[in-house]
Amino acid sequence: MKVEVRVYPREGILDPQGKAIAAALVRLGHGSVEGVRAGKIFFLDVAGDDRAKVEAEARVMAEELLANTVIEGYDVRVL
Amino acid sequence: MKVEVRVYPREGILDPQGKAIAAALVRLGHGSVEGVRAGKIFFLDVAGDDRAKVEAEARVMAEELLANTVIEGYDVRVL
Repeated sequence: MKVEVRVYPREGILDPQGKAIAAALVRLGHGSVEGVRAGKIFFLDVAGDDRAKVEAEARVMAEELLANTVIEGYDVRVL
Repeated sequence: MKVEVRVYPREGILDPQGKAIAAALVRLGHGSVEGVRAGKIFFLDVAGDDRAKVEAEARVMAEELLANTVIEGYDVRVL
């Protein structure tokens, strides 16, 4: 099954990469940009046909490796 | 408006980061993982109330800065 795991900075955590990208976009002429937060997305192929089980396993993968849960949140979507 | 831009390796482009993550997940016991591709996601706050215009501008931002279109694809979603 295809699974998407999105990882993003938690609310209140500084995101210097996002800030730098926002500043660069404004410099490029995109003055309507008010803020950017930069995250990661992982597209997983996972064997199995039980959606709930695959989603639960992907959450464990996020907790163990894909996200740093001290500073990052994540969400999981089975397609 | 909130806009999400997802950037991912194009089909056929090597993704060493994704390969390393897949191998690490298998080592951690997630033997059901068959593949991982690693991408980026940018959460933008963009001023404006014309969805089509905001989406079009976000596509320009992706082409100019957020994605390296030689090796990466992207998609844009206005929330």
